[in-house]
Amino acid sequence: MRIALGIEYDGTDFLGWQRLSHGASVQASLEHALSFVAAEPITVTCAGRTDAGVHGRCQVVHFDTEARRDMRGWVLGTCSNLPSSMAVLWAQTVPDDFHARFSARSRRYCYTILNRTVRPALDARYVTWERHPLDAERMHSAAQTLIGEHDFSAFRAVSCQAAHAQREVKALSVWRDGEQVIVEIEANAFLHHMVRNIVGSLLPVGRGEQPMEWVAALLAGRDREVAGPTAAASGLTFIGPRYEKHWGLPKEISE
Amino acid sequence: MRIALGIEYDGTDFLGWQRLSHGASVQASLEHALSFVAAEPITVTCAGRTDAGVHGRCQVVHFDTEARRDMRGWVLGTCSNLPSSMAVLWAQTVPDDFHARFSARSRRYCYTILNRTVRPALDARYVTWERHPLDAERMHSAAQTLIGEHDFSAFRAVSCQAAHAQREVKALSVWRDGEQVIVEIEANAFLHHMVRNIVGSLLPVGRGEQPMEWVAALLAGRDREVAGPTAAASGLTFIGPRYEKHWGLPKEISE
Repeated sequence: MRIALGIEYDGTDFLGWQRLSHGASVQASLEHALSFVAAEPITVTCAGRTDAGVHGRCQVVHFDTEARRDMRGWVLGTCSNLPSSMAVLWAQTVPDDFHARFSARSRRYCYTILNRTVRPALDARYVTWERHPLDAERMHSAAQTLIGEHDFSAFRAVSCQAAHAQREVKALSVWRDGEQVIVEIEANAFLHHMVRNIVGSLLPVGRGEQPMEWVAALLAGRDREVAGPTAAASGLTFIGPRYEKHWGLPKEISE
Repeated sequence: MRIALGIEYDGTDFLGWQRLSHGASVQASLEHALSFVAAEPITVTCAGRTDAGVHGRCQVVHFDTEARRDMRGWVLGTCSNLPSSMAVLWAQTVPDDFHARFSARSRRYCYTILNRTVRPALDARYVTWERHPLDAERMHSAAQTLIGEHDFSAFRAVSCQAAHAQREVKALSVWRDGEQVIVEIEANAFLHHMVRNIVGSLLPVGRGEQPMEWVAALLAGRDREVAGPTAAASGLTFIGPRYEKHWGLPKEISE
């Protein structure tokens, strides 16, 4: 039996999604809790691996098990074995050909910048601080050039292990909400550090240090060396993947 | 010279506002940092003392000092000597007859309830969890009876040291925003635990366990013993006080 779960986590105290030998990972904590509930070893596959400090609003995983529990049991039983910074939002049986990663049609990320002269105190875990005034409309306009299918080598981490850098950005919006500037981006898939590198290149545009055309030039140049620095992890939240409606998953993650 | 400051803090790791001999308090951390910047001992007076675990969005304090620093120095110098869960938002000179507590015409609090079957993970520091479905409109309607000047003995902690229980609630709204139910309340002043006790009595109404008229009956009965339990501290944030415009303080805290 294949089961899908929706997972929420505060990434602050984890070394990232992926199981590691040297510290706490979201994956290892989840597998530990699920294995306890299933009374057999469980291995999960996720929709999108997140880095250290990055949060998950609705990460999706699937796993196969012989154990028979009702869906309430998977949710509450697993929750009670997870650290307080993680929760299982829902559980659902899925067909055997559903795959949390390969079935996902797109992924959405949100990046939150606290834009004021003073560093954050409340919400410090969930924002990145920018002290210089940002022009969010200018950032939004500059970012529109990234929409569509492109080679995103300019925004790809050196460590990225993807076979190629072609990705399709489906939507990218930047707007101001009081002291916060929010960047929301949806793509079919992302390269390693792609969102944080895009934000890192939108910041100089927002501060007026680079012209709006700079982002288009970076994209065309395909050179990671000249783009902006990788923005901090704390501001980044994986909102979640999106799947085709026929899988019958919750509406927040269905197309 | 009298100086007023706006202070933001995450109350999770503090034993509350008030200086204590046995643990970290917001007041002691602030006075320690200010005394370092002033190079003389500083004692502050705040607009509204908050309990352990309660957050501050814009707490206001005043203090007197012989030290001469520019306002940028008070803000940045103090920030750099505060723990990461506290920040000084602004500093301003005020007339000698300004008093953070006595000059405040009202105080505003916000209480956030995460209303879903699964406990919080993201934002766990800033919400209180309610697993049973809440009817926010019913809570709002029931709460309107509290608006105006009343004896709030029914919602007053046993430990409250105020001379009398007469307070004027100027506004009280309850609304739903997705999975969250928000309670916002403004009064000339609050008794100890008053917001948390009001929320604790609105919850049974929201769950449908008590009729809407129950809140009016509790208020009239003036008996703390029959009202709902004190709601948890984590969901509570002191938005800030409000002062008359003539003091020239930031517009968020001016009437």
